Amino acid sequence: MEPARNNHLIIKRLGIDTQEEYYVYVRSDCQVVRSEGFESQTRVSVRKDGKAIVATLNTIHNPLLHQGEASLSESAWYALNCREGDTLTLSHIPPVESFGFVRGKFYGKRFTRVAFQQIIRDILAGNYSKVHLASFISACAGDSLDLEEITWLTQVMVDSGMRMDWGKRVVVDKHCVGGLPGNRTTPIVVAIVAAGGLTIPKTSSRAITSPAGTADTMEVMTKVDLTVQEIRSVVDKEGGCFVWGGAIQLSPADDLLIKVERAMDLDSEGQMVASVLSKKSAAGSKMVVIDIPVGPSAKVRTHLDALKLKYYFSVVGMALGIDIEVIISDGSQPVGVGVGPSLEAKDVLRVLRCDQGAPMDLRKHALQLAGPLLELGGRADKGNGIAMAEQLLDAGIAYQKFLAICQAQGGFKEPGTSKMQFDVVAPRAGTVQEINCRLLSKVAKLAGAPVAKAAGLECPVKIGDKVKKGDLLYRIHVESTGELEYVKGFLKSQQSIVVIK
Amino acid sequence: MEPARNNHLIIKRLGIDTQEEYYVYVRSDCQVVRSEGFESQTRVSVRKDGKAIVATLNTIHNPLLHQGEASLSESAWYALNCREGDTLTLSHIPPVESFGFVRGKFYGKRFTRVAFQQIIRDILAGNYSKVHLASFISACAGDSLDLEEITWLTQVMVDSGMRMDWGKRVVVDKHCVGGLPGNRTTPIVVAIVAAGGLTIPKTSSRAITSPAGTADTMEVMTKVDLTVQEIRSVVDKEGGCFVWGGAIQLSPADDLLIKVERAMDLDSEGQMVASVLSKKSAAGSKMVVIDIPVGPSAKVRTHLDALKLKYYFSVVGMALGIDIEVIISDGSQPVGVGVGPSLEAKDVLRVLRCDQGAPMDLRKHALQLAGPLLELGGRADKGNGIAMAEQLLDAGIAYQKFLAICQAQGGFKEPGTSKMQFDVVAPRAGTVQEINCRLLSKVAKLAGAPVAKAAGLECPVKIGDKVKKGDLLYRIHVESTGELEYVKGFLKSQQSIVVIK
Repeated sequence: MEPARNNHLIIKRLGIDTQEEYYVYVRSDCQVVRSEGFESQTRVSVRKDGKAIVATLNTIHNPLLHQGEASLSESAWYALNCREGDTLTLSHIPPVESFGFVRGKFYGKRFTRVAFQQIIRDILAGNYSKVHLASFISACAGDSLDLEEITWLTQVMVDSGMRMDWGKRVVVDKHCVGGLPGNRTTPIVVAIVAAGGLTIPKTSSRAITSPAGTADTMEVMTKVDLTVQEIRSVVDKEGGCFVWGGAIQLSPADDLLIKVERAMDLDSEGQMVASVLSKKSAAGSKMVVIDIPVGPSAKVRTHLDALKLKYYFSVVGMALGIDIEVIISDGSQPVGVGVGPSLEAKDVLRVLRCDQGAPMDLRKHALQLAGPLLELGGRADKGNGIAMAEQLLDAGIAYQKFLAICQAQGGFKEPGTSKMQFDVVAPRAGTVQEINCRLLSKVAKLAGAPVAKAAGLECPVKIGDKVKKGDLLYRIHVESTGELEYVKGFLKSQQSIVVIK
Repeated sequence: MEPARNNHLIIKRLGIDTQEEYYVYVRSDCQVVRSEGFESQTRVSVRKDGKAIVATLNTIHNPLLHQGEASLSESAWYALNCREGDTLTLSHIPPVESFGFVRGKFYGKRFTRVAFQQIIRDILAGNYSKVHLASFISACAGDSLDLEEITWLTQVMVDSGMRMDWGKRVVVDKHCVGGLPGNRTTPIVVAIVAAGGLTIPKTSSRAITSPAGTADTMEVMTKVDLTVQEIRSVVDKEGGCFVWGGAIQLSPADDLLIKVERAMDLDSEGQMVASVLSKKSAAGSKMVVIDIPVGPSAKVRTHLDALKLKYYFSVVGMALGIDIEVIISDGSQPVGVGVGPSLEAKDVLRVLRCDQGAPMDLRKHALQLAGPLLELGGRADKGNGIAMAEQLLDAGIAYQKFLAICQAQGGFKEPGTSKMQFDVVAPRAGTVQEINCRLLSKVAKLAGAPVAKAAGLECPVKIGDKVKKGDLLYRIHVESTGELEYVKGFLKSQQSIVVIK
């Protein structure tokens, strides 16, 4: 329906940040609201110069806006490329037809490929509210997708974004099914594998709920925010890269779904498989090693769950033409010593430089992943991958490759050091029984990670270590006294994070 | 954890209305945001003077707020009983434990009574975000709740709010499973049944997505916004009432769930049964007639669906000690002539006054529901209810009761008449084949209903009626020329609303 003249409004900027959710703010006595029958929280179509987005309407009772004015949340402002004084048009949105497939799923109907196509198209067009997204994710939750549905969803997600093509038969990649603080194997694995002559165009994420993502860690040593053209030139030159994946549109629907999944903390095996493999397929990877750490505070809690995921990854990978090797690893405690961007970067450098004090568990875990990649990529014979990876690391070839990739990405710099430290020591002698990964991550975040790059903590002890009274359990790194007080306050109210028995 | 001094903020009112969702607005460079690691859209605990709510955080880049200031959405402002200059504290919220039951449901576990208790308690405490609510509704959607689960959910919802007790064995009520414009039987049924000597403490809702709710319609004739004490005194005196149910806390969890269900447009039989029967049980009703209109644009589309709902209502009603009689009625077209508060009120009065021009379908439908109530309540023998209802109506006793109840609620006034009308006539001769209820409701809303009380439309034709070219199909009532232009614009872009073949 064509809007009447009276639903034009002049834009004023209020600067309200609602992240990727679009909001439009209007006066409660606004003519458009009355005539269209909108109320606060109605989802409406907002148009400017022929471009339209779907936004949630909020009304304002205050004289922040004059009659005839409207405002947009920052994301909506940028999406419509607004300037103060531009004109907006508001109108009703049609019902989201593809949501019928979600409803059908609750009544026992399977999703079809066409259903996923229409759902993902609507999600990318912004037609799904958070409530619709939550419902779609719920419809895929638990065991409700079969392998064919997962495969379709993955393929549709791949088709929804950009695809990279490296013009090569052998393109390898790795992925870790997350959850362990300090488990920063990626920079080491990429360096080894690229040093071994393989192509590994690795994209990584920034932290969302953790104290550091691989992109945050790499950012303290090099530039990670590269364009597609820059990534291509780095990989063409050095065989590998470690860049932030957020700027390139690989499986963009997945980015939207993951945010809501995190807010719900709802595991969905099907969604996870589709999420990981759609990104890998879009990135042009042909052989992928997937690391599944299993432990009480890791994402995957039991060996049985890991075996099922392994099966799913393998079958869906086959349908997408990707060779998958799944490594089920020990996820009972943090890997390495540092938690936080700079502190993890220091661990990575120690391993690459074969320093005396390098954390052996991080080294071992990286080799465990690099080995199979060298085998999958045809550089090492079956069973010899780890040995070859070890050689590349110990001879310093991997470190040279690491520096060369950093150079290609814009230069290498040493990670910085925090301004202040605070030690937590063993209150008595005993054996380390348990390390609470969740609380450890929380302390690192309260200390300022990942925003304060040098903030976080170092935890040099491992389960089974014997400690004397007064031995260091973990050292907190902060950039300001405020944050230090903050962490101290938190620690007082908590049970032990490193449990000694 | 005890918050440090630096997460105190001074409240400033910005007047942003986000309905029942709570929002807190802070500067993006706010100390609290940085130290707590909040980002926009984080859900946080907001405390003032020992009272706490959960709100969604939005950051503001503009100088709307000074350093150290925060603002709240209007609903949050009222919930915390704020005044400008009061002090707020922000802190992290713990994970919502009861959401584990929702996750479990997706993995095939049944809900238990305890699970529902904890979920409903968390929902009422505001601990569930919209995303959590959507997920819970999804977990209950389709056929996924069995009769025992529906019964538990209903009982837990009843226990979550206020309960009314009338000290009587016989307390009757009615409910209609919605969707039909103009189907305003409630005032007539209440008048007949109360005139027959029964107790019928009827609470009704205002329109949420329709052009009028029963409370909107009654409001043009009497006061509907009564306290619990006032309702009790009206019912004690006259046996019945027609009041707005929103002010009294009967099954308050249901009010929150229904809003999200509407946004999702996701039918859930279990939720619907629990929603209706929890309200009835909390209202102290012992015998309830439920009207299920079946039709292509009604809520229930097929006779089979209606039969299943009938079964569910009966079984869950039995568990709650409520006698249920379900009437499956014709929902193929609007009932009565008027659509909109005053226009429906005029239909109601015509039927009660036995006017010559009274809409016979509305009269018949009201008798169809009042009859079984008189039987259930023991006032009429089985099979004689409708005849008794007819007598009470035709003798003017029901109308006298209607006026008496209005008087007890605060006085009776005649519904008003609109300022302007616009007729839509038959473009050619033929037979009325179809009336699109959904579009008819939309036109009534665009005309200004329910906010403009006298706005809406009258549709005097019925399916099967023969019309000549130029005969009136429907008459639109508006209060301003702006709205008239608006409706005309809409009608131009639409296919026929009354289809003539």
